[in-house]
Amino acid sequence: MRRYSIKLITQMRRFVIGQAKNLIDQTRRQHHHHKNLRLLSLLPPFSAASDSTTLVSSSRLLSSSSEMSASDSSSSLPVTLDSINPKYARLKIMIHDLVKRRASFRFFAIVIFVVLGGSQVLKCEYAVRGEIVNIAQRLQEELKTNKDAYPFDEIIYCNIGNPQSLGQQPITFFREVLALCSHTALLDESATHGLFSSDSIERAWKILDQIPGKATGAYSHSQGIKGLRDAIAAGIEARDGYPADPNDIFMTDGASPGVHMMMQLLISSEKDGILCPIPQYPLYSASIALHGGTLVPYYLDEASGWGLEISELKKQLEEARSKGITVRALAVINPGNPTGQVLAEENQRDIVEFCKKEGLVLLADEVYQENVYVPDKKFYSFKKIARSMGYGEKDVSLVSFQSISKGYYGECGKRGGYMEVTGFTSDVREQIYKVASVNLCSNISGQILASLVMSPPKPGDDSYDSYIAEKEGILSSLAKRAKTLEEALNKLEGITCNRAEGAMYLFPCINLPKKAIAAAEDAKTAPDAFYCKRLLNATGIVVVPGSGFRQVPGTWHFRCTILPQEDKIPAIVNRLTEFHKSFMDEFRD
Amino acid sequence: MRRYSIKLITQMRRFVIGQAKNLIDQTRRQHHHHKNLRLLSLLPPFSAASDSTTLVSSSRLLSSSSEMSASDSSSSLPVTLDSINPKYARLKIMIHDLVKRRASFRFFAIVIFVVLGGSQVLKCEYAVRGEIVNIAQRLQEELKTNKDAYPFDEIIYCNIGNPQSLGQQPITFFREVLALCSHTALLDESATHGLFSSDSIERAWKILDQIPGKATGAYSHSQGIKGLRDAIAAGIEARDGYPADPNDIFMTDGASPGVHMMMQLLISSEKDGILCPIPQYPLYSASIALHGGTLVPYYLDEASGWGLEISELKKQLEEARSKGITVRALAVINPGNPTGQVLAEENQRDIVEFCKKEGLVLLADEVYQENVYVPDKKFYSFKKIARSMGYGEKDVSLVSFQSISKGYYGECGKRGGYMEVTGFTSDVREQIYKVASVNLCSNISGQILASLVMSPPKPGDDSYDSYIAEKEGILSSLAKRAKTLEEALNKLEGITCNRAEGAMYLFPCINLPKKAIAAAEDAKTAPDAFYCKRLLNATGIVVVPGSGFRQVPGTWHFRCTILPQEDKIPAIVNRLTEFHKSFMDEFRD
Repeated sequence: MRRYSIKLITQMRRFVIGQAKNLIDQTRRQHHHHKNLRLLSLLPPFSAASDSTTLVSSSRLLSSSSEMSASDSSSSLPVTLDSINPKYARLKIMIHDLVKRRASFRFFAIVIFVVLGGSQVLKCEYAVRGEIVNIAQRLQEELKTNKDAYPFDEIIYCNIGNPQSLGQQPITFFREVLALCSHTALLDESATHGLFSSDSIERAWKILDQIPGKATGAYSHSQGIKGLRDAIAAGIEARDGYPADPNDIFMTDGASPGVHMMMQLLISSEKDGILCPIPQYPLYSASIALHGGTLVPYYLDEASGWGLEISELKKQLEEARSKGITVRALAVINPGNPTGQVLAEENQRDIVEFCKKEGLVLLADEVYQENVYVPDKKFYSFKKIARSMGYGEKDVSLVSFQSISKGYYGECGKRGGYMEVTGFTSDVREQIYKVASVNLCSNISGQILASLVMSPPKPGDDSYDSYIAEKEGILSSLAKRAKTLEEALNKLEGITCNRAEGAMYLFPCINLPKKAIAAAEDAKTAPDAFYCKRLLNATGIVVVPGSGFRQVPGTWHFRCTILPQEDKIPAIVNRLTEFHKSFMDEFRD
Repeated sequence: MRRYSIKLITQMRRFVIGQAKNLIDQTRRQHHHHKNLRLLSLLPPFSAASDSTTLVSSSRLLSSSSEMSASDSSSSLPVTLDSINPKYARLKIMIHDLVKRRASFRFFAIVIFVVLGGSQVLKCEYAVRGEIVNIAQRLQEELKTNKDAYPFDEIIYCNIGNPQSLGQQPITFFREVLALCSHTALLDESATHGLFSSDSIERAWKILDQIPGKATGAYSHSQGIKGLRDAIAAGIEARDGYPADPNDIFMTDGASPGVHMMMQLLISSEKDGILCPIPQYPLYSASIALHGGTLVPYYLDEASGWGLEISELKKQLEEARSKGITVRALAVINPGNPTGQVLAEENQRDIVEFCKKEGLVLLADEVYQENVYVPDKKFYSFKKIARSMGYGEKDVSLVSFQSISKGYYGECGKRGGYMEVTGFTSDVREQIYKVASVNLCSNISGQILASLVMSPPKPGDDSYDSYIAEKEGILSSLAKRAKTLEEALNKLEGITCNRAEGAMYLFPCINLPKKAIAAAEDAKTAPDAFYCKRLLNATGIVVVPGSGFRQVPGTWHFRCTILPQEDKIPAIVNRLTEFHKSFMDEFRD
């Protein structure tokens, strides 16, 4: 299936670029740095009001078309690309429109914008595990049969925040508790005491006592096991110094389902907008698109370390409102993904004030709350900030998303997390509960882990010292890796890279030479994707083009995780440096 | 929050019934058994064409209204029931309409239909863990502080297919493998060999070898770990005798997310219909409602053991089409939930032929495939049936849903499952893959369990004998319990109960005396809910009113699981018998 995907994408690219070739120069002339930030909004009828849907549509251009897959379509099958949910399939219609209307410039300008590195909404799903990852997997297969096929021994995946896939070890205490809760018969065996820490055994008993019938294989309450939510609420209180209510906790299979649930609740039509940072983690654009809403972008200021300016929020809010969009919520990712910045406390206060004043729900993606690497920054939850401003339940609607996939624990595969929902009326919360109930409950292993990350071993516990050693080992190593990679990147010609204050990513800006951009055009790919593919082929390092996250048009970036193990970092720096030099030598203007 | 729910439901009931009281008699006079099956379709503009949305709307009547929660609404909060997704909130509008339009009879007829046990779509989420379950939990709390508060010692939950919550033990081999994969350090300890079966250790190694870096804490491929999908495909092949492709497997957090994914794909608007059995597991109505489609009901024939008649399918399909509905798919639950029937092979062939002829996707809910209790019936997958008819990939679009929550394993809390997607063009499958990617992957513990249930220990394996003993112990006990309960129910005055050929439920029909129906009206509740509440208060037994699953209007049922442990069954039978007698004595006409 993935093979088809690449083929289809390639075929579609050829089709579009073929049709559009004579328009590319014309477009590029109008394509000044930063000035055409609002290119789409200049192009009615695809104004900013229909920004997200347009982009969804355009993005699909790159992924599939039933016309292109005639080889395996069959008239006797009932489902075709024409007949599926148009939130998936809208682009198909656009292509037909293009053909029918003999392609006005406006349409092609959008297409070109997208092909040349503009925003690609549903395509973004693929960004962190997309086309380049597929190529990487192919190379990896080739390396297995022919060690000398490429100038590198292994593929280094820096494309996704998936720490354990790169050798990060899970926290022993967490896994001990999980194993004991998975196979509770172990708790009755004396040999278990030799294999497990005493506090993991204690904790397993405590957790099992909180589960009716000690049945870890049973569905729980739709919001999650009450005793585990108690532990999470206590953890939030300890973190923030303000009360937390276990009834506000909705446990989820990772943060993503929580975000979907809130988008589904808030979005009724494309007239409902959600303010999202650009660059952004594609979950947001994808979720807004799937639920049929409008992404209202606000641009983070790269020059000030990916600063979040209230003036920019105001400007975009007003612009959206002038187009008839009801902006429902502001999504903030702190620490930032893909941009790695940590918000200043004062900035957070302004954001809370802004949401209160403008009547916006604050959707706070706080999954990287444990990942802060610089001494001058600290993570504060938005709830703590709001409460410290004197705002309570009746004043600010706030959803905080947390995940077991990030932090120092990195338990991505366990799919656990929660959202803390405050400042919603009981009738609205009842609706959230109802939707949570449709899937019965999130998985219990994830629930257990979520309670553990919010209530880890305490001083005096058997595991405490080793737990702290593991945790600090991981976090201090991540900080070192972030610093080393950031410094290395900043030494490269034409690359500027803000520091990773937090999260797991660097998002360097590449000032690509014109010759490289032209070569990318010839290769029918976005310039940053062109760079990333060349990097992969030369070094085995997998990074994600900035166009997968959206970026100021005409600027080019890539996202690189800081997750490869520390002993691999020098080699990565060397390979990257060497590659970049030869790339610049090849394309320098 | 749950407390609010009960309060709101009660308040709403009062409001509706208060307004409607003078219409009840009038309606009941028109309310003949079976004849008004199509009551809704007789009532334009709420015809069958808008069946599901109407019912969604009506159902919300019972759950909430911002008017009713004025006590905790606050003007400074941005989200109100008026401003959330109307797929959740539509009823709100209906109530307003009602008030504004001074309530025509047509509106109230629908309302009464719903209140008196008609279909309650989104309310159905609650059915299996709904109002009656809330009451049960309250009683349970009271019993903790006052053992003598009620004429029973404990609450017996027969409301939900959640076997381990009632004491069913997990299969040892499965949990051994899971524990070893959760805490892989165990595999290096010699003491582990004394604690685990040798084949569980072997299997854990095999699974870990299939996971890149042995990282069970890492995100997997969006469809699930390839090696585990290989095991599942091999299991399907062994079951069916026809090839299965691991690339057709999409692993999911239980069957529900798979159903949602397909509904999202197939439904573009309320003009898209899905044929669903009535009675049905409320996941289907809820999912169709959430994605904005139309549920096209087909009625199972209770008289012939919940038979699925092709003539009924045809009739409903034609009726829906005549109303402008494009019917996209046929959902079949086999073995049936809540009805427990197992389809005959010949019937399955007819269903496949019907789907092929009418161009419908066949959505086959096969989560109870291991739960067949009668010697004259056998489970055949629809894929096996289709392939045995000579239909391949190009002929029939078929999605088979499987779950680790059911069968003899009952691992509900682990949230694992898969869908096998066959007969879709590669471009459409690419879209399914894309949506699967948005949430990155299903949880790895669930994935591991899904592979285990499809490839359990084999003869000669260390665990084989104990595995078989556990499996057969559970299944034969379930069969006994089903038989005992069915026989006991059939002995009761006015109750007829089809046999549970499969699944985990009995769905007896209660012929309620008129006096009981009148008392239910006085108590402002549906007659079957009235019966179930009385049963709970008298015996501590929790069952779900038939109205939670939809049923032929004017008929009353309840769903009772066969899951309480065998030693509890005699007491359940006694209590139920005694209660029913006294209930009938009280209300006999």
